[in-house]
Amino acid sequence: MRITLSQLNLHIGNFEGNLAKMLAAVETAKSQKADLICFPELAVCGYPARDFFEFDDFIHRCQHSINELRKVSHGIGIVVGSPSRNPVAAGKDLYNSAYFLYNGETIGIQHKALLPTYDIFDEYRYFEPATEFKTIDFKGKRIALSICEDIWNVGNENPLYTICPLDEMMPQKPDLILNLSASPFNYAHAQIRIQIAKVNVLRYKIPMFYTNQVGGQTDVIFDGGSLVVSPNGMVFDEMPYFEECLKTYDLEEVVAGDRNHEQPKDKIQLIHDALVVGIRDYFQKLGFKKAILGLSGGIDSAVTAVLAAKALGPENVSVLLMPSQFSSDHSVDDARQLAENLGIQYDIVAIKPMFDAFETALAQQFAGQPFNVTEENIQARVRGTLLMAMSNKFGHILLNTTNKSEMSVGYGTLYGDMCGGIAVLGDVYKTEIYELVKYINSLPMGEGRGGVVPQNTITKPPSAELRPGQKDTDSLPPYEILDPLLFQYIECRKGPNELIAMGFEASLVKRVLRMVNINEFKREQAAPVLRVSAKAFGMGRRMPIVGKYLS
Amino acid sequence: MRITLSQLNLHIGNFEGNLAKMLAAVETAKSQKADLICFPELAVCGYPARDFFEFDDFIHRCQHSINELRKVSHGIGIVVGSPSRNPVAAGKDLYNSAYFLYNGETIGIQHKALLPTYDIFDEYRYFEPATEFKTIDFKGKRIALSICEDIWNVGNENPLYTICPLDEMMPQKPDLILNLSASPFNYAHAQIRIQIAKVNVLRYKIPMFYTNQVGGQTDVIFDGGSLVVSPNGMVFDEMPYFEECLKTYDLEEVVAGDRNHEQPKDKIQLIHDALVVGIRDYFQKLGFKKAILGLSGGIDSAVTAVLAAKALGPENVSVLLMPSQFSSDHSVDDARQLAENLGIQYDIVAIKPMFDAFETALAQQFAGQPFNVTEENIQARVRGTLLMAMSNKFGHILLNTTNKSEMSVGYGTLYGDMCGGIAVLGDVYKTEIYELVKYINSLPMGEGRGGVVPQNTITKPPSAELRPGQKDTDSLPPYEILDPLLFQYIECRKGPNELIAMGFEASLVKRVLRMVNINEFKREQAAPVLRVSAKAFGMGRRMPIVGKYLS
Repeated sequence: MRITLSQLNLHIGNFEGNLAKMLAAVETAKSQKADLICFPELAVCGYPARDFFEFDDFIHRCQHSINELRKVSHGIGIVVGSPSRNPVAAGKDLYNSAYFLYNGETIGIQHKALLPTYDIFDEYRYFEPATEFKTIDFKGKRIALSICEDIWNVGNENPLYTICPLDEMMPQKPDLILNLSASPFNYAHAQIRIQIAKVNVLRYKIPMFYTNQVGGQTDVIFDGGSLVVSPNGMVFDEMPYFEECLKTYDLEEVVAGDRNHEQPKDKIQLIHDALVVGIRDYFQKLGFKKAILGLSGGIDSAVTAVLAAKALGPENVSVLLMPSQFSSDHSVDDARQLAENLGIQYDIVAIKPMFDAFETALAQQFAGQPFNVTEENIQARVRGTLLMAMSNKFGHILLNTTNKSEMSVGYGTLYGDMCGGIAVLGDVYKTEIYELVKYINSLPMGEGRGGVVPQNTITKPPSAELRPGQKDTDSLPPYEILDPLLFQYIECRKGPNELIAMGFEASLVKRVLRMVNINEFKREQAAPVLRVSAKAFGMGRRMPIVGKYLS
Repeated sequence: MRITLSQLNLHIGNFEGNLAKMLAAVETAKSQKADLICFPELAVCGYPARDFFEFDDFIHRCQHSINELRKVSHGIGIVVGSPSRNPVAAGKDLYNSAYFLYNGETIGIQHKALLPTYDIFDEYRYFEPATEFKTIDFKGKRIALSICEDIWNVGNENPLYTICPLDEMMPQKPDLILNLSASPFNYAHAQIRIQIAKVNVLRYKIPMFYTNQVGGQTDVIFDGGSLVVSPNGMVFDEMPYFEECLKTYDLEEVVAGDRNHEQPKDKIQLIHDALVVGIRDYFQKLGFKKAILGLSGGIDSAVTAVLAAKALGPENVSVLLMPSQFSSDHSVDDARQLAENLGIQYDIVAIKPMFDAFETALAQQFAGQPFNVTEENIQARVRGTLLMAMSNKFGHILLNTTNKSEMSVGYGTLYGDMCGGIAVLGDVYKTEIYELVKYINSLPMGEGRGGVVPQNTITKPPSAELRPGQKDTDSLPPYEILDPLLFQYIECRKGPNELIAMGFEASLVKRVLRMVNINEFKREQAAPVLRVSAKAFGMGRRMPIVGKYLS
């Protein structure tokens, strides 16, 4: 039996586009003499479709795509993810299902049992869990169909769940496992995914074919990395990350498999590639081509500009250099140098005239008040307004350059440097950005200079340059101390006592946790964040604003 | 048996504050010779605590409050909501529980079975559903404990669920039902809640005591309206809306009850009262006193100012009048008149100097480009920056004045008129705001003038006044047509074909749905919206940004 995996970059709600991709893949699979082609979870509509699932019309269109795929299933089995209606009145209206189409018929359908409802996932909001588990007989083989999370409770050892779907199927003696996934990227996930696939295969002693989605869907990025695992637990193949792929495998070769085709998994490279795809797909799926951002001479905007140029092409990236009266000369020089290295268009607009106009307009109200964070914020908002004006006039999307450290502690101006359609670095801590820039500068780029990002941008102390001599460390602990603490609090959900027990200084813990918590109101209005860690701001982390806890 | 219901305004994560309120209530109940006092769902920590539940320390503190309440339970039963740990490894870590404390012991604990996971609710994200249902014997009575949603699947007729918790308990022959709720307000909800309570009571022929939370928690507002229902289905008592209340009832009197103490439920009055409480608690729970907003002379900002003055006192509300070069004279006059009627402080700051400074700064970039929405947005953002500057300098929270019609179709400027800590009218359609202003003007206010909002503000055609002669209807269908269509799409989740079948014009449907969907990126960064309908923007409506559906 020959099995094709089709790892696709789908687009939420783009039924025509998704169907066209699948129809083309079916044709290719047929030309490769495949018996069976397997698409990702919820492939007809894309993932995560969120509350679109509450619209009857949306479900209709999903069913229409299934009907169209069924029509081309003559001579080839097509396994594809789609919502399906729950015919029983009690329980949620929908199932998250895998359809098995063949010769113009639906020869089997398996619903998902384990519905992730944590972090960014809301599946129990829409779907009823499966309670029946039936293998499907196809061309002399018995197939265990499973959907994403269904393989993540091996032998019921995952504390989140109370059932192991494949255990339920094993009495029926399947010959292979198919898994349809929409399993989002984080920099540690590919390794864990392989581990889980292996544990399943070693438990059941049959091969697994695992198809994942690929590409960005606003904040959530899918990395692909679809898997074929031989019964001996070796990775017969791992598809590339961050790009579409179609391959056809011979089941007998996989069963006999004796090779380990895993890809290298370097954290910083993975983050880099994910962010490029995240930008590219955000623009492509919204129908935009051109980006703008503010280039300060600092490291965050420099890295954002590099990633944007890679994602969209330097000809589609413009930057504004917006020095304040407190900016150092080298800031403009460094920014200009980067723009030239990248070959992107830049303009210089000093913000003092607008700042002065605001100060004059508010002179009466502000009489006798000292210069404080208000004036810093006015400057940041003048910059935001300039960038949005360019964006509005020329049809750019504004890229936000805030990093995760700043976003955590609220070190940023709402409606100022927090403006933007997508926060490129909002899930990357400052210390990780230093690693990222090192990686970027190690790559050949442009005319092959030593590094595209100027050294001065990397070595100077971080500063918002909104008052004389300002440095980030005036308001914040050094990032080498701050970031590990944030990581433990945000990613690992350690409480204050656990953090202190880990060796963090008690007053620092109190201060930092308070900063994180009282700034929830800012994050509520932040741009969506490209998710690269296991716990990003946004839908994956839902916090009360008026909460009075550790604040 | 004497039963006290304590309807409390709790504060998420404010363990000390919530405990102090409950301890005081226990004292009062004792002084009223109560045998039993009943608090709301998850009262120890407030609702919705969201991902705070993922922190061990948070659960610890909940347990600490339970321990403290247990200590004062000598001579009085205390029924209180709290998360509790699931001792079984498989399944979610927590239960949403009702503790029954008495004489220093926990004499019973009932977990919640029906976990709302729709709209604003995410309970299955945190909690394992109950599978055991045991009544509790107390002072010769047998009590069926239930938590909020548990009574919303009477006889298993709610399609969302597959179990009816009270049906499970009835073989044990309970004498009464206690329900601990945190059931959020919407303008239709109190009526439905009474209906559900009656249906339960009539099915089981025993009385129900139902305690609800009250007060605002950012976007979500709780109305209280706790209920005592006699076995004949009559409402023995309904506690007031939007305020704390403690009352002690004699069980025998309730059983014999022959009275119907329901409150009037006028939609517009309820919305009015909810918004006042929503503002008040947002400020109080964040520790702020003073509000600022922009007063345009239009109806939305006028209504917001009135509500703010009621919520915070006129002495705590300031407004900025920020005429543009395109503002009509009467706009400033109308705004000034309202400020004087309300007795709130106002300042006038013309925006032209800042607007001119931006146009000059961008003259080179914008050379040869016509005046368009860019210039309108610059003006809106100058206003946003002025308001935020005042807010930063003097410690106000900026109130957002966007209405639901605008927010739906994206008729507003991100980082401009969309600025603000909380969107007061973001769940109120424009046509409802006209009803609201009529109600407001019917109330005695200030020196008892005919109406606090100037007639001219109400009667003139809505306009953003950002270009000469601009009217909302230049870009939008008339609100009398737009609002019913939005209601059907947003609240009722009708798809395009259903809307057309209802009589909406096909091209209008297409145009409006597209406007709603392509503006998801703006709502993503909008201020939290005070929720007064059954489907508000925010956590209750989760939509993809890059979705290509009806767009």
